[in-house]
Amino acid sequence: GTGVCFSRNPATGERKFYGEFLINAQGEDVVAGVRTPQEIEELNNVMPKVYGEITDIYKNLEVHFKEMQDMEFTIQEGKLFFLQTRTGKRTAAAALKIAVDMVTEGLIDKKTALLRIDPNQLDQLLHPAFDPKAERNVIAKGLNASPGAAVGKVVFTAEEAVHMKEMGEKTILVRVETSPEDIAGMDAAKGILTARGGATSHAAVVARGMGKCCVAGCSRLAIDYASKQFKVGSTVVKEGDWISLDGTSGEVMLGQVKTIDPELGSNFSTLMEWADTYRKLKVRTNADTPKDSDVARKFGAEGIGLCRTEHMFFEGNRIDAVREMILSEDKAGREKALSKLLPMQKGDFVGIFKSMAGLPVTIRLLDPPLHEFLPHKDSEVEALAKDMGVSFEVLKQRVSSLHEFNPMLGHRGCRLGITYPEIYDMQVRAIIQAAIEIKKSGQDIVPEIMIPLVGHVQELSTLKANAIKVIEAELTAAGIKLEYMIGTMIEVPRAAITADEVANEAEFFSFGTNDLTQMTCGFSRDDSGSFLGQYVEEGIYEKDPFQALDQSGVGEVMKIAIEKGKKARPDIKLGICGEHGGEPSSVEFCHNVGLNYVSCSPFRVPIARLVGAQAVL
Amino acid sequence: GTGVCFSRNPATGERKFYGEFLINAQGEDVVAGVRTPQEIEELNNVMPKVYGEITDIYKNLEVHFKEMQDMEFTIQEGKLFFLQTRTGKRTAAAALKIAVDMVTEGLIDKKTALLRIDPNQLDQLLHPAFDPKAERNVIAKGLNASPGAAVGKVVFTAEEAVHMKEMGEKTILVRVETSPEDIAGMDAAKGILTARGGATSHAAVVARGMGKCCVAGCSRLAIDYASKQFKVGSTVVKEGDWISLDGTSGEVMLGQVKTIDPELGSNFSTLMEWADTYRKLKVRTNADTPKDSDVARKFGAEGIGLCRTEHMFFEGNRIDAVREMILSEDKAGREKALSKLLPMQKGDFVGIFKSMAGLPVTIRLLDPPLHEFLPHKDSEVEALAKDMGVSFEVLKQRVSSLHEFNPMLGHRGCRLGITYPEIYDMQVRAIIQAAIEIKKSGQDIVPEIMIPLVGHVQELSTLKANAIKVIEAELTAAGIKLEYMIGTMIEVPRAAITADEVANEAEFFSFGTNDLTQMTCGFSRDDSGSFLGQYVEEGIYEKDPFQALDQSGVGEVMKIAIEKGKKARPDIKLGICGEHGGEPSSVEFCHNVGLNYVSCSPFRVPIARLVGAQAVL
Repeated sequence: GTGVCFSRNPATGERKFYGEFLINAQGEDVVAGVRTPQEIEELNNVMPKVYGEITDIYKNLEVHFKEMQDMEFTIQEGKLFFLQTRTGKRTAAAALKIAVDMVTEGLIDKKTALLRIDPNQLDQLLHPAFDPKAERNVIAKGLNASPGAAVGKVVFTAEEAVHMKEMGEKTILVRVETSPEDIAGMDAAKGILTARGGATSHAAVVARGMGKCCVAGCSRLAIDYASKQFKVGSTVVKEGDWISLDGTSGEVMLGQVKTIDPELGSNFSTLMEWADTYRKLKVRTNADTPKDSDVARKFGAEGIGLCRTEHMFFEGNRIDAVREMILSEDKAGREKALSKLLPMQKGDFVGIFKSMAGLPVTIRLLDPPLHEFLPHKDSEVEALAKDMGVSFEVLKQRVSSLHEFNPMLGHRGCRLGITYPEIYDMQVRAIIQAAIEIKKSGQDIVPEIMIPLVGHVQELSTLKANAIKVIEAELTAAGIKLEYMIGTMIEVPRAAITADEVANEAEFFSFGTNDLTQMTCGFSRDDSGSFLGQYVEEGIYEKDPFQALDQSGVGEVMKIAIEKGKKARPDIKLGICGEHGGEPSSVEFCHNVGLNYVSCSPFRVPIARLVGAQAVL
Repeated sequence: GTGVCFSRNPATGERKFYGEFLINAQGEDVVAGVRTPQEIEELNNVMPKVYGEITDIYKNLEVHFKEMQDMEFTIQEGKLFFLQTRTGKRTAAAALKIAVDMVTEGLIDKKTALLRIDPNQLDQLLHPAFDPKAERNVIAKGLNASPGAAVGKVVFTAEEAVHMKEMGEKTILVRVETSPEDIAGMDAAKGILTARGGATSHAAVVARGMGKCCVAGCSRLAIDYASKQFKVGSTVVKEGDWISLDGTSGEVMLGQVKTIDPELGSNFSTLMEWADTYRKLKVRTNADTPKDSDVARKFGAEGIGLCRTEHMFFEGNRIDAVREMILSEDKAGREKALSKLLPMQKGDFVGIFKSMAGLPVTIRLLDPPLHEFLPHKDSEVEALAKDMGVSFEVLKQRVSSLHEFNPMLGHRGCRLGITYPEIYDMQVRAIIQAAIEIKKSGQDIVPEIMIPLVGHVQELSTLKANAIKVIEAELTAAGIKLEYMIGTMIEVPRAAITADEVANEAEFFSFGTNDLTQMTCGFSRDDSGSFLGQYVEEGIYEKDPFQALDQSGVGEVMKIAIEKGKKARPDIKLGICGEHGGEPSSVEFCHNVGLNYVSCSPFRVPIARLVGAQAVL
């Protein structure tokens, strides 16, 4: 007879002998699957003596190696031979259970338990997955932009996704690329599939923030919005057809593939608590709404490292006031529109401050270029022109005057604050009014105001002076004292190179490693899909630099900034809020270079907590 | 009486007493222009004794200060009072003449003469200018992108500019922005006016290369191609209307303003010769054609620092083969199209090598994204589809699949060489075949092959290995030995930060400071017009970083690259080929940080030669 066995169940982690055997067979018969093997316990009935020997041996081996064992044996005329033993592979759930159980059993200590968990595997536990036994009809493969499994009917517009959800239908939103206008649709859809864009494209970032499955940059997709269908080679998929997306592998499948829901048990919480006792790196989250922050707190987030105010501009009918502001001819017109937005933004901040209950909250002032808020199709421009009471030509001209050749390097971030100071003034006012309300309610709050895209210290000193003027006026009017911090993102290489000057003005640095990677490597996150795949395949870059921080390039720039920043301001608070804040190798780097915290999307918080501990150990 | 006088003529530099006086008047009467003053020589007739005293004094003052003097005097009842003397302002031509004359007279030495010339003023001598007395009806002001004066009839397309030139008409080409397709039209026009783009936009760079007047980023221009007119406020200018452009001030004027032609006299050559004896920095030129290189050699260029191969792709009907290459479905199709381009590129290189007669020539392999070579209007796509025998839909789909959100950070430069190695192979083959032909004709040549947009050493090592394979095969086939160099541009911040690794592969670095500025500062050269003006006005940046090198930011990145590059390869050749290579403060910086050469557009070569000497002195 012959058999393969595990000292514990590799699928569940249960402490129970697990395996299979065959009588009158060689090892390859078990593996080949020609004959159906029997469960290992059955051996106790067939050869009780041998079974007893096996049981003794596997227990000894596990105690000796202090690890779950994967073993092979053979039995020749009643005599047992152990052919091999090695550490057994296991699912994420099993890994957690085995690690925690072995500590309870006194076999290993907590440190060893923590180091045994593969942080990349944790994703399996946090998102739904496909049933490994289900059949897959894979038609294309894109970038595994946000993990999980999603099944739904194909829709091509955000409106349709919202509409279908209202009808109780599950959808997959398929777009060439998404934009902030699509957010409601992305929220309504079960998963997102795009033909363009990389690991930090809009679709990928937003989907990860929502904990939603996303396959991005699937360049084989030929999407035809007009005829509401997409082609992959000769396969045609129409609106309403079912597809399934695997965000963990990047696969796109026809039909409805069966999924399994995620389970977070007590082992998970136990391990996370252990991790927190060793971890030095704080873990914050990127969250724009009270809903996001609630999810993140459940995963253990210790604050918000990045609250993007522009996402709030798309909620409900706020976009009307935003557009009115953008399209105003003069400052007076902009200020009128901004005064409509002020109470709404203040309300957002009150909600978030409450949800975070005293934990630190970093709010980034407006970042994207203004044309992202405007419609681009003629029909939409016409409708807006009617609403605003201006002519189609005037509006069309204004929209096209805001078009940019390279919006990533264009009129955005703090450049908006310099040219339209009234926008940042409104946002700062909303933040401080919200903080005052919270403070008056008896809750502590130290708002951290973050200026994006600073490249030159003069930008920061100008905008900081403007902000302080607004803040002090509000505090005086309210008759209240309040601590606050003003800092900057480090995402433009020039800011990193001149970090000593910048640190004279900034109370904190938050590395925006998405943009820092774009500018340091010269890669557009939206366009690099056409060559970056080949770059990684050929080993030019070891990993996609938008997924795992490029330590020798972008990391080197960060080190320069940290060194110069600390020289100018030794107690400067240092964090990261790019997508790398939740990627294991990048989090380890952040610990090693001495950052105070990482901030990542809510669903990656546990990964960062674990890696933070592993880095110490 | 009262008067103002100069010890030499401030307009021409002639060594002749020059000035004006009024009898029965105070100083302000001369300045106010209420009464017409008399020429200073006339005073000899009116008050010969006083005139004699003035003559003695001005000569003494000039000898004492060793500089041309600007003096004021008054005469009270026959007694002369000198009120003031100071160094006199002068035109560029006068400055040259005075400096050279004073050396001849033994008043100053050559060093002093060189230091007295303002390099920015030299531009006046190299380009036509407007008659200072002419009336100007200024309707708008843009960026002074390329100096000079131009008068012509407004046209809105490159084709029309070419057509009008054939009809013997002078034109000003007015575009929202230019693209490589417009080059023939830019060449045909007298001047170029664009509504978008900054100091290193396509229009600005190409115009400076051609020594042609250009006003760029004139954002008040509302151009309407369809109705063939542009508006500035309420002023409407139609196709065929006369306008005048001042590329030195950035002014756009209605009508035909009178111009004066430039004159380069012997004083200019003398001073340039003196400059060359002190200068350590070599001065090369950016030139893409034998015609450009001839101009640059006349201005004293000592080689070509940047020959952009893509400009050659637009000549004559070559663009057809280029498009065939881009639109091919597979490598075989691309290679077929490339084989048509090979003899043409080889011919270009032979022409340039001959023109430079043994001086070094650096050739940059293909840099821009492929979509720059494709038509974008439906009508053009349709025509091309017919030519190529493919359907409109297929071609339209291919064109739109090449569209990029941020082409500056997209699929271009060496990324094209990695994904389509056959393109660079063809270019390298053309360079080496041309060099072999030159070498066989008895002329020396060491071609320098430059790989653009390198960010990671692995890109360079891959492409260098490919190039060497092609080169060695050609040399073996020709049975000839030839020296050659392979190097890289440093224009991606990552390449600068990892310059030690890059220098292990690169025999030379050429700083591409246009792109390095874009990526280090996060400014798109085409889009920054909307805020950079205000940045400079408010003193956030002291100067437009696309015009004068941002020494504390981009310059710091260069210093890191130089230090690391030299550590890895002490004899590495260092140059700059961005537009800054012809800007005085930037050239001085290049000398100070130890570059071997600067390379600039032909018409800026004299400026670089002068500054190179001044930096030493």
